[in-house]
Amino acid sequence: MKLKILKNELNESIQHVSKAVSSRTTIPILSGIKIDANASGITLTASDTDISIQSFIPTEKDGSHIIQLETQGSVVLPAKFFVEIIKKLPDDEVEIEVKDQFQTWIRSGKSEIHMIGLDPEEYPLLPQLEQNETFTVQSDLLKSMIRQTLFCVSTNESTPILTGVQWQMAEGKLKLIATDRHRLATRQAQIPDVEQLQFKNIVISGKNLNELNKILPDQNEPVQIVVAESQVLFKIDTNLFYTRILDGLYPDTSKIIPQSFKTEMVISTKSLLNAVDRAYLLSREEKTNIVRLVAEESGLVEISSSQTELGKIKEEIETESYSGEAFKISFNSKYMLDALKAMDCEKIHIGFTGAMSPIVLKPSDHVELVYVILPYRTTG
Amino acid sequence: MKLKILKNELNESIQHVSKAVSSRTTIPILSGIKIDANASGITLTASDTDISIQSFIPTEKDGSHIIQLETQGSVVLPAKFFVEIIKKLPDDEVEIEVKDQFQTWIRSGKSEIHMIGLDPEEYPLLPQLEQNETFTVQSDLLKSMIRQTLFCVSTNESTPILTGVQWQMAEGKLKLIATDRHRLATRQAQIPDVEQLQFKNIVISGKNLNELNKILPDQNEPVQIVVAESQVLFKIDTNLFYTRILDGLYPDTSKIIPQSFKTEMVISTKSLLNAVDRAYLLSREEKTNIVRLVAEESGLVEISSSQTELGKIKEEIETESYSGEAFKISFNSKYMLDALKAMDCEKIHIGFTGAMSPIVLKPSDHVELVYVILPYRTTG
Repeated sequence: MKLKILKNELNESIQHVSKAVSSRTTIPILSGIKIDANASGITLTASDTDISIQSFIPTEKDGSHIIQLETQGSVVLPAKFFVEIIKKLPDDEVEIEVKDQFQTWIRSGKSEIHMIGLDPEEYPLLPQLEQNETFTVQSDLLKSMIRQTLFCVSTNESTPILTGVQWQMAEGKLKLIATDRHRLATRQAQIPDVEQLQFKNIVISGKNLNELNKILPDQNEPVQIVVAESQVLFKIDTNLFYTRILDGLYPDTSKIIPQSFKTEMVISTKSLLNAVDRAYLLSREEKTNIVRLVAEESGLVEISSSQTELGKIKEEIETESYSGEAFKISFNSKYMLDALKAMDCEKIHIGFTGAMSPIVLKPSDHVELVYVILPYRTTG
Repeated sequence: MKLKILKNELNESIQHVSKAVSSRTTIPILSGIKIDANASGITLTASDTDISIQSFIPTEKDGSHIIQLETQGSVVLPAKFFVEIIKKLPDDEVEIEVKDQFQTWIRSGKSEIHMIGLDPEEYPLLPQLEQNETFTVQSDLLKSMIRQTLFCVSTNESTPILTGVQWQMAEGKLKLIATDRHRLATRQAQIPDVEQLQFKNIVISGKNLNELNKILPDQNEPVQIVVAESQVLFKIDTNLFYTRILDGLYPDTSKIIPQSFKTEMVISTKSLLNAVDRAYLLSREEKTNIVRLVAEESGLVEISSSQTELGKIKEEIETESYSGEAFKISFNSKYMLDALKAMDCEKIHIGFTGAMSPIVLKPSDHVELVYVILPYRTTG
């Protein structure tokens, strides 16, 4: 293998695949990045067996040459050193030459690097997926659906299935669900051309979705998603992102969200967020993060918290609209803050069914997003 | 005590003094910030006994009212909560009212906070310094003198005196010296009106100077420095920064810097920095950070490093000027990078006296800055 390639294009692909390299792998070959070069371009592959990322750099793009191939071939190079050295090379062009026994020379400007490469035949093959269940989502929608649910996954490894986000498809709608037993997020969206498609128990680790979100472009591009037996593949431009599906059955959460309320209000997201944020400063000193909400029938809401050694804080907010009984409820302010920050809307609708029953938050502009937060059972 | 104050002015002063609050103090009253209010303004004080910071907010500034005082008084408020809540208050104005037993109410917009205050009589008094040894340095000069020496202090607490920077004054020049036994930095500058002033063993903890540098303004302002028996006081606008002087005798470093060289070169700072930075990527995998420099009499310099499992890297740089013998030397690339990054000049002068002797780096434009790096004793 011998070729010249533009540094920035190579670096961009390396940064993508590097997210799949584990620093603590027990399989030595996986501490490397695989490079395959042929006439059409070069393909970079990295994997930690849980996620695998492949990035293709074409020989030509938009009519300009990116790669000058002299001889084709493959090699596996040590990931950490390769990732860091390429971005620091002095020249805009990089020459890569693989000689006997995968000894590799990288040249750029007056820098010459000799890397001890590994045999690409030892590198595991990526899964071949059946392309039956395939659909397309725009990257900005996908990115926000992931962002709005991801933070609700459990961090407790004793129930591994809850560390993932459940993906459901039914009646033309994609739905993402996450819960850690104390709070729940659901976000759904209409997807074009998926009437035939139906799945229910596709659960993807929150950690992997976090890595996926780093690769998803901010500008709007179609992302093709292939759901297979034990893997999901995301095709983003010339990048492929494979993630394992978590084993186990996700609990049925369809009954958790109350549908009718004793009290309902519409309130400014920012006013509530700021008031809860200030009350949080005191509540976290007690480790419990307990903040109290007291609503009067007139529609006035008081947010408060207290801490024995420091003092107390309280604040009044006027609601935009209010119907139902006066009531009191206590909740974990951290959970409330996470939800309010992810709402992306000016006003929210909150529904209550009682001091011991779940609080339900929705954007008031009807985006199909729902948060449920369980209250604290406090006395008095 | 009862007053109203503009939030931003209060917040700015709080951020300054908060740098002296320790999160792990054994003296409960020091976990608070002391507030003294009278007709001229309010004074905030914080201390961890090692450093103390005082910030004064005048009632009026540039003709506009900052404080409306109703009744004067003092209180100590819990620092962490106070620091964070003030910047998050909803309104531009903050009301502070201290009632019986130092119970304090803070009001802003529709937020009301009740803080459990402490008795200000229990707060230790700041040291009264004799103002005999006083001089003035411009803040940008002081800031760069500290930045260019600070990173060379020792982090090893077994020789406490070396965790500080030595300040010397003689013949109208202020000189800062720092060393961790492997490298040394000295930076001096002419100071106006200090001909009479002389001191030698003023050593200030690197940690404290780091906090001082955060308070020193970026825009150029005079900083008055008072050197007393066991404390140094920095007066910056309306802020006072007190630091303890470290006990013990700083070693004599005057003989360490070689004055004549076998080989001397002038080289581009950026070229050398980038080449060493690339070689560092490999060298750090060996934990030793060893990088090798080989110079030919022609003036060509080769920077290289190697790591058994990964490979090797080498790079050539042409010097701007070169005189003396060809030679080889090995050094800790981390130390070299730290020095090169702090140089602030396009070209540097490097002097060598032998493979086992200190390397001497100076800016080529004669700023009075010198770095000394001890070489590695390698075989072959």
